[in-house]
Amino acid sequence: MLHTPPNGLTATDAAERIRQGWLSSEDLVQACLRRIDETEPTLQAWAHLDREGAIARARELDDLRRRGRPLGPLHGVPVGLKDIIDTRDMPTQRGTPIHAGRQPEQDARIVERLKEAGAVIMGKTVTTEYAFVHPNGTRNPHNPEHTPGGSSSGSAAAVAAYNVPLAIGTQTNGSVIRPASFCGVVGFKPTNGVISRAGLLQTSVSLDQIGVFARSTRDAALLVDVIGGYDQTDPNSYANARPDCRAGAEADAPVPPDLVWIDLPYHDRLSPDARDGMEEVLSALDGRVERVTGDAQLSGLIDVQRIIHEYEIVHHLAEDFTAHWDRISATLQPIITRGRQISEAQYQDALGVKASAEKWFESFFHDFDAVIAPSAAGEAPLFSAGGTGDPVFCTIWTLAGLPTLTLPLLTGSKGLPIGVQLIGSAQQDDRLLRTARWLEHHLDAQ
Amino acid sequence: MLHTPPNGLTATDAAERIRQGWLSSEDLVQACLRRIDETEPTLQAWAHLDREGAIARARELDDLRRRGRPLGPLHGVPVGLKDIIDTRDMPTQRGTPIHAGRQPEQDARIVERLKEAGAVIMGKTVTTEYAFVHPNGTRNPHNPEHTPGGSSSGSAAAVAAYNVPLAIGTQTNGSVIRPASFCGVVGFKPTNGVISRAGLLQTSVSLDQIGVFARSTRDAALLVDVIGGYDQTDPNSYANARPDCRAGAEADAPVPPDLVWIDLPYHDRLSPDARDGMEEVLSALDGRVERVTGDAQLSGLIDVQRIIHEYEIVHHLAEDFTAHWDRISATLQPIITRGRQISEAQYQDALGVKASAEKWFESFFHDFDAVIAPSAAGEAPLFSAGGTGDPVFCTIWTLAGLPTLTLPLLTGSKGLPIGVQLIGSAQQDDRLLRTARWLEHHLDAQ
Repeated sequence: MLHTPPNGLTATDAAERIRQGWLSSEDLVQACLRRIDETEPTLQAWAHLDREGAIARARELDDLRRRGRPLGPLHGVPVGLKDIIDTRDMPTQRGTPIHAGRQPEQDARIVERLKEAGAVIMGKTVTTEYAFVHPNGTRNPHNPEHTPGGSSSGSAAAVAAYNVPLAIGTQTNGSVIRPASFCGVVGFKPTNGVISRAGLLQTSVSLDQIGVFARSTRDAALLVDVIGGYDQTDPNSYANARPDCRAGAEADAPVPPDLVWIDLPYHDRLSPDARDGMEEVLSALDGRVERVTGDAQLSGLIDVQRIIHEYEIVHHLAEDFTAHWDRISATLQPIITRGRQISEAQYQDALGVKASAEKWFESFFHDFDAVIAPSAAGEAPLFSAGGTGDPVFCTIWTLAGLPTLTLPLLTGSKGLPIGVQLIGSAQQDDRLLRTARWLEHHLDAQ
Repeated sequence: MLHTPPNGLTATDAAERIRQGWLSSEDLVQACLRRIDETEPTLQAWAHLDREGAIARARELDDLRRRGRPLGPLHGVPVGLKDIIDTRDMPTQRGTPIHAGRQPEQDARIVERLKEAGAVIMGKTVTTEYAFVHPNGTRNPHNPEHTPGGSSSGSAAAVAAYNVPLAIGTQTNGSVIRPASFCGVVGFKPTNGVISRAGLLQTSVSLDQIGVFARSTRDAALLVDVIGGYDQTDPNSYANARPDCRAGAEADAPVPPDLVWIDLPYHDRLSPDARDGMEEVLSALDGRVERVTGDAQLSGLIDVQRIIHEYEIVHHLAEDFTAHWDRISATLQPIITRGRQISEAQYQDALGVKASAEKWFESFFHDFDAVIAPSAAGEAPLFSAGGTGDPVFCTIWTLAGLPTLTLPLLTGSKGLPIGVQLIGSAQQDDRLLRTARWLEHHLDAQ
């Protein structure tokens, strides 16, 4: 009577079936592997697939369950990891030939947490070069002529293609929300500092943030609860309790939330179908969305993000960029050159503006539960166009470290998915998820 | 109407009152500090008290609560740490003048977890020299003429004296259960590998285990849930979910548990009052306790523990012991000398026997929920006798890495507390706590 094949289950449902003994982790992993075999020749989502390791781990987890051992919240559930997240039993190659075959000695902190929670690490998903702009072959599962977005290309594509129910990515500008929007899945990047970045490729100490891909908000919340946690070695991590995301994703809003739409200059980059789609959503939310016009300072943050990102990546990866210049893509080279010209003073100024923006948003969210915004400029661009699409619709929120998620609510003129973005107040990720749940229910009821 | 002063509350009750806004963390911390001022001149439980830091942290936590931020399970609750647990904002002096003033750069992994859970680290509690045999001045709160036990002397004494509701210690032989028994508090050492030892003084990689002191089993369970977790850098840590200790401590046993009393040769070291007390408990449990006689192999484990412990401490601390021999106590020196004579072959044999014992206990617990046993030989010996009492009643269980706890159920002939020990199956800490709860209720109802 099981109509959904195991790999089609959400993580929450799969974990529950495994807990109850209706499904084995091994069967789930095997179903995912079969699905990967079907899609991978076209999709190219996996930089490394740990077929044997995943099956062995699944068997071990099934055995633990039979022996009555404690089960973690992801017991037996497969997860994909962006290939900039260190794993001690799989290579971590960072999307560049410079790190081909690189084998870390330690797991990233989040990998420890996944293992304790009972997750099965399926493998490493394709990232763009150094998790930045240059793509690495992954296609959009809805149409292989299109990009899946980036930099977390493989993670978004793998979840959308039912290869795995969950995957992890990172966002320094728009690398979680944009690919999730293009691939038609839920993308969720919690507040900066919720999740430790120990053991990740550092491209920007100020901006790098971990996010997740799932096929439901509840799944995304569950995964963030598992991997979140304080880590003294990560300068952005904070030493207090994290929001309970799962509770947020399962809570009913006590009153309908107050949303805000901020008109910003870069909205002129929205495609007509995305604009129409957003207008439809806004009118369905009639009376709950205040429309305001963002001032110039707000849109000026786009450049502030660029300065910090480029300055920091040039410094963090100076050794690579100097020693292996000829193996850096022609896409990245001019960005590095530009980054090298940013002065320390410009950089410090940018950090100052970033801090002011964070402060400004603190009081902004006294009046609103969430900002509603486009997740991307529209449908996924053609793969042949190069690049992974325009991240600008994510930039401000990433810079300010705010929790943000995208819901796959719209379809564009080519039949590709378009996401709707919600952005919440810092460290109120649970409230943001509650608002997302309200939005999903409200639009369903239309 | 608050009859119990805040420092008299259990951690569970204090956390609940803080959560509800009936009590501030600052008031709780201040009450604990006042109590410490009263007891410390006699008790000498604290190697370092972070008065200002604790108040500042409490204020910060109160502020977070007022701002509606997430609250961890120990939000605002003071905790004491044995002075072999590294803290980056307090010295960690390991009970020896050789490390006087030593300031670690990083927090131990468990300190990270405490901070995330909202605990207030009050300071460092006195340990014996290198957490081994030579005492450092702490007295028994029930009678200062007596030892509090060791090596976690200050942690046991501080909890018993209502200085803090919770404290952390370590046990390589009997260093949690024995002082808890002597001081009349709950001591709980979970299964080896549940709690990471990263950032602790390593005295025995095979045997060192973290344990906790509290004034209720529920509090002890709560603290272990907070500090437990997988850590790839600790060779004993395991990469699966931990038992849910708090659920265990709050669960009713579905059927009355099956207990076992194992007669062992070293039981001849039991004092008459402890023996009488244990007999009273056993007769109150009439029909639920099977009495068996332990064979020679079982009591032979005492020597196996000694070989591993002494061999490993001599190797782990070789540098200290060589460079600072004249500053090592006359109590420890002969043990080091003996340890240096243990051969690699003897040590490897001992590790082999340890592994067999672990295996043997796995099947042993198919028939029993828990072993019931003395926690120590009797009441706390006189301080003037030197040392910290006989750990032999803990040795076998520590060697096998089993979860063990002591409940302050008896009073000896001098009016000092005597604990009753329960030992459970590996990784079934929740079942052990459920059994302890049953035992407490069953004896209360007599």
